[in-house]
Amino acid sequence: MTITGDQSLLREINRMALVRVVQRQPGLSRADLAKETGLTKSTVSLLVQDLIDEGWMVESDVQATGTAGRRPTPLSIDGSRLALIGADVSLDNLSVLAVSLTGEVISEIAEPLAGGRPEIVIRQLARLVGNLVEQARRGGRRLLGIGVGVPGAVLTQQGVVKLAPNLAWRDVAFRSELSIELASLGVEDLPIFVQNDFDVAALGEYEFGEAPVPDPLIYLGLGVGVGAGVVVRDRLFLGADGFAGEVGHSILQLEGPVCSCGRRGCAEAFIGLKAISTRISGHAEDMLSVETIRRLLDREDEGALLSVKRAGRYLGVLIQNLWMYFNPGRVVIGGPVCELGAPFLDAARSCLEAYAQDCALQLPDIRLARFGTRSIAIGAAALVRHVLLRPMEFRFHER
Amino acid sequence: MTITGDQSLLREINRMALVRVVQRQPGLSRADLAKETGLTKSTVSLLVQDLIDEGWMVESDVQATGTAGRRPTPLSIDGSRLALIGADVSLDNLSVLAVSLTGEVISEIAEPLAGGRPEIVIRQLARLVGNLVEQARRGGRRLLGIGVGVPGAVLTQQGVVKLAPNLAWRDVAFRSELSIELASLGVEDLPIFVQNDFDVAALGEYEFGEAPVPDPLIYLGLGVGVGAGVVVRDRLFLGADGFAGEVGHSILQLEGPVCSCGRRGCAEAFIGLKAISTRISGHAEDMLSVETIRRLLDREDEGALLSVKRAGRYLGVLIQNLWMYFNPGRVVIGGPVCELGAPFLDAARSCLEAYAQDCALQLPDIRLARFGTRSIAIGAAALVRHVLLRPMEFRFHER
Repeated sequence: MTITGDQSLLREINRMALVRVVQRQPGLSRADLAKETGLTKSTVSLLVQDLIDEGWMVESDVQATGTAGRRPTPLSIDGSRLALIGADVSLDNLSVLAVSLTGEVISEIAEPLAGGRPEIVIRQLARLVGNLVEQARRGGRRLLGIGVGVPGAVLTQQGVVKLAPNLAWRDVAFRSELSIELASLGVEDLPIFVQNDFDVAALGEYEFGEAPVPDPLIYLGLGVGVGAGVVVRDRLFLGADGFAGEVGHSILQLEGPVCSCGRRGCAEAFIGLKAISTRISGHAEDMLSVETIRRLLDREDEGALLSVKRAGRYLGVLIQNLWMYFNPGRVVIGGPVCELGAPFLDAARSCLEAYAQDCALQLPDIRLARFGTRSIAIGAAALVRHVLLRPMEFRFHER
Repeated sequence: MTITGDQSLLREINRMALVRVVQRQPGLSRADLAKETGLTKSTVSLLVQDLIDEGWMVESDVQATGTAGRRPTPLSIDGSRLALIGADVSLDNLSVLAVSLTGEVISEIAEPLAGGRPEIVIRQLARLVGNLVEQARRGGRRLLGIGVGVPGAVLTQQGVVKLAPNLAWRDVAFRSELSIELASLGVEDLPIFVQNDFDVAALGEYEFGEAPVPDPLIYLGLGVGVGAGVVVRDRLFLGADGFAGEVGHSILQLEGPVCSCGRRGCAEAFIGLKAISTRISGHAEDMLSVETIRRLLDREDEGALLSVKRAGRYLGVLIQNLWMYFNPGRVVIGGPVCELGAPFLDAARSCLEAYAQDCALQLPDIRLARFGTRSIAIGAAALVRHVLLRPMEFRFHER
């Protein structure tokens, strides 16, 4: 990369760098920011005034420190004036929410999918987004953009869903079609970002976690499908074709059970909801829901308990492998299968603890998803903030 | 990151950006470079003249294109005037070589380790490096720096070997001690970079491969130890504590054979040289060398053949998993176990092809190491070039 004389880009890079520093270290003053970034005090003052005017930052009350004299004014991210829209397109449901710049949910709507075809889903999504946009604007908030998480492989630059097997979608021009539908509802000029669902969930944990958030950060999503979103060096790790983190299709056992992908012994064929259901019921039809399996566990159904514990043990193996491959600072576990609770999660934990003890290493920080069932929708909103805060990286990436 | 008024850093960033562009696209002219980077033509001319004077670039002969008028002069990386030193500290041997800026070996020395203690190894290494430095200088080359690959976990910024289990080293201040030893031999002012052996081997493939080199790139090293160096977005992927890519200790089989690390079923316990030897001989003592196993294979010893094929099959599973985790553009396989040849590699290949066929995906580019037994030493030299060409990233990283 070279640094050219593009002044408006340089200005945006510096502005957003200031926001990122304040996000990591709330309470810094303008003088601290100058020291931290190497920018002159006068440049910092000008840019900070801008950021305050536009709703990115707010001056906190002057804190009494006990010493005399004028105190420098502490700055923090303003959660009250801007909004991000995030949408979770799942296999049977659409959830859309508006969140503040600091990740608090302002409003949300959810509906069952009106149909499976992309144009139906996109029209329905546009209507829900339109509602929330109007609501946010009535509440006096300025919107920064719209993020969408979809269960499939996405061409990030183009906003195209390349393949979403469980929705039976292929090469859907999601961003441009959503943009047309939104324009027809009078919603224009908002940038739209589309990304894989587990990837955005990882960004939700990364952007809205308490600073400092460890890096690499892995979000491991457990549903019918199993996969991971991975943040490496402050950015999503997408790989050569955008499918890095497809850990549900790593092999946990040679010649293991057949997976939905056609291979044998994939992690998903041990840990995915369908695999657990099949193991309990003895057949692959009429998949048991998480609620049904929970009821069986509550009743201490021995078959269900053994099957769920077995899946939990394989979850432990999968996390051990994530640990060795990525050396993450944090692993976050999310998705509906987590709701199977203690029998599942404790089995994973004790498997992992045995591995850690055998090799005398300390496990990374492993925790449940911060936003529970909203992980993907809030993550999609986080994607908007993530991209806007990194004008250089994303511009550079577009070349 | 913010961009400050540090003119000497800005200049270095722009200079090295020009070198990187010419490296990727040899034959560009100054005018092409201006277009490519957004720098003005006069800035490019000044910087290129500098780079030519210092030995980084060379003007190629003007190519006749058939049209009249003065042709723009094509530029390329100069392999004739600068040199990089690379060292491979292995368990029983020290190899040091000098390579040109384009990766050609200029000279090399190797010796068995004089002892196991760090101070003995470092003194011996300093002597070998000193010889090569003198030789390179007599040959009229200017040296850019020294890279060292060690079989262990390294704290990159500090140049400290945190842990090298097979050498029984812990917390060795490698860089500073090597620097003192070199100074006592009159070799001063050369930057020294220390990194894990598989990591530098990955950089060797990345820096000296034919452009464009795919990213992510994985170097999978197969010896007594099994591990990977991974390049992601133009940089080594090190993880939270520097041990990302420890794929030899990912689990390939629940309750599998005990590994050197204490866990069961690790990849290394199936694919590592010790594991193969134990499988053939039936005991863990007196590890068979690669040469001995090759002789058994040549004699069509059935036990050896079965054991080696089994290891190859597990290699296929490991590469399948690397594929799913990292979505690499290229996987490079290196290290002594590769010399077991067809029985080993073909078993891996057919296992992988079966996986790819089952899920109807195309395998990534998989190949043997470009530099064979010199992969680590040449990779260590590549580390020097890699760091020098990225002054912004590495300065930023030091904060």
